[in-house]
Amino acid sequence: MLCFAFGTPNAIKAQSASANQGQEAFAFGESDSTRMRMAFDQALSNSSAYPNLVELCTDIGPRLSGSENAARAVEWAAEKLREIGCDSVWLQAVKVPHWVRGPREKALLHAKGQSEELQVCALGGSVGTWGRGADGGNRIRAQVVEVFGLEDLEAMGRERLEGKIVLYNRPMEPRLISTFAAYSGCVDQRGSGAAVAAEFGALAVLVRSMNLRDDDLPHTGVMRYRQTGDSIPAAAISTRDASMLSRALRQNPDLEISLELSCKNLPDVWSANVIGEIRGSVHADRIIAVGGHLDSWDMAQGAHDDGTGVVQSMAVLEAYRQMGWRPRHTLRCVLWMNEENGARGARVYAESVAEAFARTGERHVMAVESDRGGFTPRGFAVDGLPEVQAEGLARLRAWTGELNGYGLHWAEPGHAGVDIGFLKDQGVLLLGLVPDSQRYFDYHHASNDRIEAVNKRELELGTAAMVGMIDLFDRNMPQTLNTSEDQGR
Amino acid sequence: MLCFAFGTPNAIKAQSASANQGQEAFAFGESDSTRMRMAFDQALSNSSAYPNLVELCTDIGPRLSGSENAARAVEWAAEKLREIGCDSVWLQAVKVPHWVRGPREKALLHAKGQSEELQVCALGGSVGTWGRGADGGNRIRAQVVEVFGLEDLEAMGRERLEGKIVLYNRPMEPRLISTFAAYSGCVDQRGSGAAVAAEFGALAVLVRSMNLRDDDLPHTGVMRYRQTGDSIPAAAISTRDASMLSRALRQNPDLEISLELSCKNLPDVWSANVIGEIRGSVHADRIIAVGGHLDSWDMAQGAHDDGTGVVQSMAVLEAYRQMGWRPRHTLRCVLWMNEENGARGARVYAESVAEAFARTGERHVMAVESDRGGFTPRGFAVDGLPEVQAEGLARLRAWTGELNGYGLHWAEPGHAGVDIGFLKDQGVLLLGLVPDSQRYFDYHHASNDRIEAVNKRELELGTAAMVGMIDLFDRNMPQTLNTSEDQGR
Repeated sequence: MLCFAFGTPNAIKAQSASANQGQEAFAFGESDSTRMRMAFDQALSNSSAYPNLVELCTDIGPRLSGSENAARAVEWAAEKLREIGCDSVWLQAVKVPHWVRGPREKALLHAKGQSEELQVCALGGSVGTWGRGADGGNRIRAQVVEVFGLEDLEAMGRERLEGKIVLYNRPMEPRLISTFAAYSGCVDQRGSGAAVAAEFGALAVLVRSMNLRDDDLPHTGVMRYRQTGDSIPAAAISTRDASMLSRALRQNPDLEISLELSCKNLPDVWSANVIGEIRGSVHADRIIAVGGHLDSWDMAQGAHDDGTGVVQSMAVLEAYRQMGWRPRHTLRCVLWMNEENGARGARVYAESVAEAFARTGERHVMAVESDRGGFTPRGFAVDGLPEVQAEGLARLRAWTGELNGYGLHWAEPGHAGVDIGFLKDQGVLLLGLVPDSQRYFDYHHASNDRIEAVNKRELELGTAAMVGMIDLFDRNMPQTLNTSEDQGR
Repeated sequence: MLCFAFGTPNAIKAQSASANQGQEAFAFGESDSTRMRMAFDQALSNSSAYPNLVELCTDIGPRLSGSENAARAVEWAAEKLREIGCDSVWLQAVKVPHWVRGPREKALLHAKGQSEELQVCALGGSVGTWGRGADGGNRIRAQVVEVFGLEDLEAMGRERLEGKIVLYNRPMEPRLISTFAAYSGCVDQRGSGAAVAAEFGALAVLVRSMNLRDDDLPHTGVMRYRQTGDSIPAAAISTRDASMLSRALRQNPDLEISLELSCKNLPDVWSANVIGEIRGSVHADRIIAVGGHLDSWDMAQGAHDDGTGVVQSMAVLEAYRQMGWRPRHTLRCVLWMNEENGARGARVYAESVAEAFARTGERHVMAVESDRGGFTPRGFAVDGLPEVQAEGLARLRAWTGELNGYGLHWAEPGHAGVDIGFLKDQGVLLLGLVPDSQRYFDYHHASNDRIEAVNKRELELGTAAMVGMIDLFDRNMPQTLNTSEDQGR
């Protein structure tokens, strides 16, 4: 791209002015426009989101539930919220799973007298291979059966699967525009693959990494057993090695793999959600929550998952303080613990919200979550009970003219986030930040989800979108949400 | 982000079906929808765009006009277009500037008896420092005057600028959402900074790199002299060193910089535009051109600028061949030479188009350019003579319902591209692919514009958007464009 001639004039005002086109209901007033512009100006020039992310990723790093780093992250986040000048900051105790990877994970492909190392990592929650070898040792060695989905196992039956290692190899569908849709189409292999394979007598499973790229990084993630007795070890394998294995099996169906995993589940430990709030000037007992999850997987810095959601959510409150805005509703930053392998923090939080309502009438009107990576924001997904969702969506779409000027075109019903999802039954309007999804699974749950993968501007634009959206709803809350006292009971 | 529960069903058909909502004029027929889906399926699962980009970046690499690598790129591109199965492939001769960086560029900051190296690179077209030292040597050493725009020099006058090195230090405006707008607001410093400073007797200029990040990479780009006598050396300096210098000057206004640049302008040489076409089945003498520029700067692989535009444009023709589509209009891939420092290829091409029209009546109806990086596509900018632009825009906007399903929300009037811009006066409808702009200037004209900076899926989505858009216009061309024989004369 050459230097001269193209591009629009660089007056900032021009950007705001041009977007204010004929809207019907809930039309943008001048102050809405001005405030939206302020939100973007602040986030793009004066936000702590990025420096905070650098600290979270590099000073703390991986922070799986139950780990020492998770405990450090809790302290760090509380301190940050205090520095921002929240009216109050507190920790909400949560008992979390404590799974550890341990020092050793190794897989070897044995064929034609040679052995070759495979890129694998244990899935979160998996048992290890301790004492599971044919010789009573720690290494499982067996032939491999490739399948492309849970349903394949029923068709094969126990005779073909017993004593084998099952390779789940259905790739993410590259033709889907939304990479989350492609992920949804595969992730049952990771979540339930071991439980199903155990029913047919398999010894262990390998699961193709949930990654659209062809590379050497195994991507971990949570898996679950269904009942006692189906606990066989489960590991992710890199996309490149999964494809290589597939080809190798066609040439040599008798090849074997040996697998050694030192991971194990320890007793639950105490951890915490971190919460900070700015009291509402008009509706102090009506809460708008904004948050992400503080825990991450253990293999990387958890930059996009969900460091970005954490620092963006903190930056929303910082923006209010910096700009001297006073929210009408109480604005609460909630940093949930344990989204990755249990969502225990979200459950405890939702219970406490229901309990507070029963006790004092205090309730949540809206919750915003950022947990799809720190990429350029494209808009918001709206969820909630039918009436709430419809009203939220109508309002969001009425603001389209203004939002489009900031690249926020997406305003659709849809899943808004795992953690805020637990508030749905209580009549809360749920908004999920929808960033561009194309690169998310390049890093998701893998060792390259590091600070270097996050672009400062993309992160800041997401923050600004969250501030702008919360401000709009704060000053134009649908009546359904503010008045119907018994909704959600 | 957890694994279960979220996301939409993964049936591909569902995506196409949902987008087909009530349109008025030019409504999507079923075949339009199907063909758009086919374009995306092909690009996301079977395109050569990415492997071709790997070749262009790593087998060839930097390809500044006039260089040996540029000549190799011409041969490579012609061969690729032949492999795709174009009906004809040819080279169009273009005489291009031949500027070389030479072996040495070095800047030192001298203060308090110490010297410190600065990250600089010569701007394209700059003269070197050869023989310009006070001692007749090759090193210019002088005090530094910091300014924030061309207009500052008039106010300062010759007495403060004569014999000095001018540091242009106005940063890109981070609050602008479009980074291209921020670029436009700064780039006059790079383009004309040397010419203006020379008028006031300055010895050389340093220009803050056009980069929104705070890092150590100098970003080159074209600069121009206005007349004989204003040819003083010009170099870019990294954003980090530019900021550091600003602080250092406040503490010590007498600090000096020495600058040594071995770059020079050599006589023009012959090069070529590379052109391949698939003959139209109905309107063989009406041409739809699609392209990017084959040249790049000399410091990097030119991955985003404009390797991605090159491979996407070739992939458009490949897609037609792979899917067995026959374009109604002649579909022509044009890979322009010398966009970066002269746009000579675009001028020669536009002249040849006018000449062909005068001679045979053959004319261009539409031209599509990709030269804003290989990032997730957001839509298209539409340019052209007023009536043409209006009709193109109306058509594009009528297709919004379908396009939105693929994340293509942007449909606005605006600059469509430097190379196709030369066709505007001939009544051609101009469409520029608009990708997300947030990361573009992290890499623009700097040594990190390498293959690693390009995401395969983002590249492919851009290709698909181009194929889909060209197919829509090819089968629904505005009447103004197909019938008015004398338009543009």
